[in-house]
Amino acid sequence: MSTLNLTLLTDLYELTMMQGYFKNHNQDVVVFDAFYRNNPCDGGYSVCAGLAQVIDYIENLHFDADDINYLRSLKIFDEDFLEYLSNFKFSGDIYAVPEGSLIFPREPLVKVVAPIMEAQLIETAILNIVNHQCLIATKAARVCYAAKGDNVMEFGLRRAQGPDSGTYGARAAVIGGCNGTSNVLAGQMFHVPVLGTHAHSWIMSFPDEYTAFRKYAELYPSACILLVDTYDTLKSGIPNAIRVFTEMRDAGIPLTYYGIRMDSGDLAYLSKQVRKMLDEAGFPDAVISASNDLDEYLIESLKLQGATISSWGVGTNLITSKDNPAFGGVYKLAAIRTADGSFQPKIKLSENVEKVTNPGNKTFYRVYDKKTGKIKADLICLYDETFDESEDLKLFDPNAPWKKTRLPGGSYTLREMLIPVIKNGKTVYTSPSVMEIREICNHEKDTIWDETKRFVNPQEIYVDLSQKLYDMKTALLNEMSMDS
Amino acid sequence: MSTLNLTLLTDLYELTMMQGYFKNHNQDVVVFDAFYRNNPCDGGYSVCAGLAQVIDYIENLHFDADDINYLRSLKIFDEDFLEYLSNFKFSGDIYAVPEGSLIFPREPLVKVVAPIMEAQLIETAILNIVNHQCLIATKAARVCYAAKGDNVMEFGLRRAQGPDSGTYGARAAVIGGCNGTSNVLAGQMFHVPVLGTHAHSWIMSFPDEYTAFRKYAELYPSACILLVDTYDTLKSGIPNAIRVFTEMRDAGIPLTYYGIRMDSGDLAYLSKQVRKMLDEAGFPDAVISASNDLDEYLIESLKLQGATISSWGVGTNLITSKDNPAFGGVYKLAAIRTADGSFQPKIKLSENVEKVTNPGNKTFYRVYDKKTGKIKADLICLYDETFDESEDLKLFDPNAPWKKTRLPGGSYTLREMLIPVIKNGKTVYTSPSVMEIREICNHEKDTIWDETKRFVNPQEIYVDLSQKLYDMKTALLNEMSMDS
Repeated sequence: MSTLNLTLLTDLYELTMMQGYFKNHNQDVVVFDAFYRNNPCDGGYSVCAGLAQVIDYIENLHFDADDINYLRSLKIFDEDFLEYLSNFKFSGDIYAVPEGSLIFPREPLVKVVAPIMEAQLIETAILNIVNHQCLIATKAARVCYAAKGDNVMEFGLRRAQGPDSGTYGARAAVIGGCNGTSNVLAGQMFHVPVLGTHAHSWIMSFPDEYTAFRKYAELYPSACILLVDTYDTLKSGIPNAIRVFTEMRDAGIPLTYYGIRMDSGDLAYLSKQVRKMLDEAGFPDAVISASNDLDEYLIESLKLQGATISSWGVGTNLITSKDNPAFGGVYKLAAIRTADGSFQPKIKLSENVEKVTNPGNKTFYRVYDKKTGKIKADLICLYDETFDESEDLKLFDPNAPWKKTRLPGGSYTLREMLIPVIKNGKTVYTSPSVMEIREICNHEKDTIWDETKRFVNPQEIYVDLSQKLYDMKTALLNEMSMDS
Repeated sequence: MSTLNLTLLTDLYELTMMQGYFKNHNQDVVVFDAFYRNNPCDGGYSVCAGLAQVIDYIENLHFDADDINYLRSLKIFDEDFLEYLSNFKFSGDIYAVPEGSLIFPREPLVKVVAPIMEAQLIETAILNIVNHQCLIATKAARVCYAAKGDNVMEFGLRRAQGPDSGTYGARAAVIGGCNGTSNVLAGQMFHVPVLGTHAHSWIMSFPDEYTAFRKYAELYPSACILLVDTYDTLKSGIPNAIRVFTEMRDAGIPLTYYGIRMDSGDLAYLSKQVRKMLDEAGFPDAVISASNDLDEYLIESLKLQGATISSWGVGTNLITSKDNPAFGGVYKLAAIRTADGSFQPKIKLSENVEKVTNPGNKTFYRVYDKKTGKIKADLICLYDETFDESEDLKLFDPNAPWKKTRLPGGSYTLREMLIPVIKNGKTVYTSPSVMEIREICNHEKDTIWDETKRFVNPQEIYVDLSQKLYDMKTALLNEMSMDS
């Protein structure tokens, strides 16, 4: 992505609105929040990803001569505005949740504080990047949870929604917990492990399956995973694989990482038969890996059925998040800075109560239980509110304010989740490597209980509002309902 | 895409297999077919798209020094193979179905005839590109069918699975029938119309809705679509819009293209109320457009309910093909050229009869009824078979060979669907513009009946095999089943 200028990766209305602000001399500094409303797949959490690409995008944001000429050709933009665009640079501030963090609905994941023209322009690209990578990282975390520590490989490039979808999707999948990807370009771009062996066509290009296996084993003896289902897994594939492994053993070739892959059939039944055949032939450490339309539900089911698979190649259903292929993040105006430097809160009404936005210039804190290290709740508040960990913390459900709880001082710790990544247009944050983010995410997964990770009716993590923010929101709502 | 080197956009196993073929001095010329097995969304057809990007990819295919260094760093490739890669150029032939064509399951959409090393390498990228664009073009055709000639705009960039997904997705959406896209980069890259007006944030950035509308109308009087649901569509949005349209009329400003957009609420009910209010105020030609999680089913339902919407902005559900986000195309070895130049057919067995591949070097013909111009059937055959339109054509269902039909000579026409696009590594085909492909696709839609276009239980278009191909396949299957 860094080699492509994504400046025009935006909805036309961002530019028509920009010209409107320009013509009206509107140089207001505003606050926009990017947030989402529901976890994918009815899950209990999501995984934050995509920030490094958001930063790349902002750093490369400029209208080159081709862009200006193209916009001029649309005959809706005036020369003074095009002149402004040709000198455009982003000058605002961006705060964001670090990649790999667990996130929950309604929390600001990215906060932009910038002149309205600039903040408006970047809406679409930020949402595109964050929506995509959060979605795939979340799906990967779910798949890895089902796999209970087994290897999970991202194998979906051929079914991804275009090149970027495969490449940035692989990045997000590794962040969410995958051990590697089949996508070589993702490996090159993000320094993540690339994995894979051979396809059915390798087998079919030789006169017989045994010869194909033997040739493969000669080439790659130290990572020898043989695909056994081209003709018949139990009658042909496994006997031929055992013959080749036996020949390797007899020839004194060390069998370090070896085994088989199945890409079809009843994986529960077959894997048990295959395990038995391999064990009886003296190959108890041969890996059994599987692919074929896997997802978290199928892996969980196969585990329950006693399948002996220890390595999972997950393609289509992960790279597209097939049962929930959109994250649904939105970007909403939350405040406008007034002449005195304070922030006038803005609210978007909706007939659907869940869709009413949280107004004001905000941040949010994660409240951890000091003893267990688990998340007690998240607390959205105004950006300048302070809390003292030695004092009691009162929390209440903003949708049912009578449901209150009090955490004794000293029993909890607070972590501010939004951190500055760009200040006055300059990047002030260095993204960790993808493998480091993966580590961060693995630690983050330990901060929620299994009850929140399960797939059916997960326990919700409460996202509360501070009393001050709640009061401001209520006052604004009352004010507006009196208007109508 | 043309500015990015996508050579490493491939699964690692393509490269490990390539090295295997290289080491085994396997220079066999082979035939690979890309095809799919099921139409998305249980539909009756699909739309072919993505060929221009496949050609771009092949033309740019080369391993630069960074690529070679990266592959060397993986420590699985030998220097002689890396040396070969550094001089790699695609030297084979590619045949493909032109973009915009209607396509049906099991037909070869792309046929690669090339040395096995080359044909293997390009599998992943071809599938990635073709799977993505066929998927979105097909979804767009369905959405446009539901809209019955109304304007349909592609609005999904922010929910697309990454930048390319938005941009190439917009391209495919226009091919499938959309009138334009909100995506400015897609507009620039593919010379397609870009569309859009303003967001809720425009309204919220002004002291009140009326002022926001008035300012917008001043700026864009000739394309003045006002978003009316920021506060309350019927109580606030429509009265303010009518006030602004009235002021424009009174000021003598020509109301050429104007109206409103709704992005929430009950669109059936609201659109009828809105139409009444606009008509009563003397604006019967004001456009009513709508967005908000639309898809083909919702548009069909709104039409049935008498909604007065004539312009549809379709986002998430189109750009991700939400209810069916993967096309499922595969790429299978079909034949190997022998020393005498003939093609030895190859078949991939499967316990699932539907998954058994069609062997041999093939092409396929579309059989049109001469009188109606509609498709009678498609006929897959060997590449060197010939047919005479003046003679009777015998067709039979390959899954039920006793179901036969005979078309009298002179009553049908034949069109070969696979055309050469690359010969000996050189492009011999010029892609039409995207808007031309959209026209082609619109004509193609007239070659099937409504019964095939409907969403529930569509009538299937038969894809038959020639007698010669059927006999070859049967013989191969018998031969293999005797082996096991």
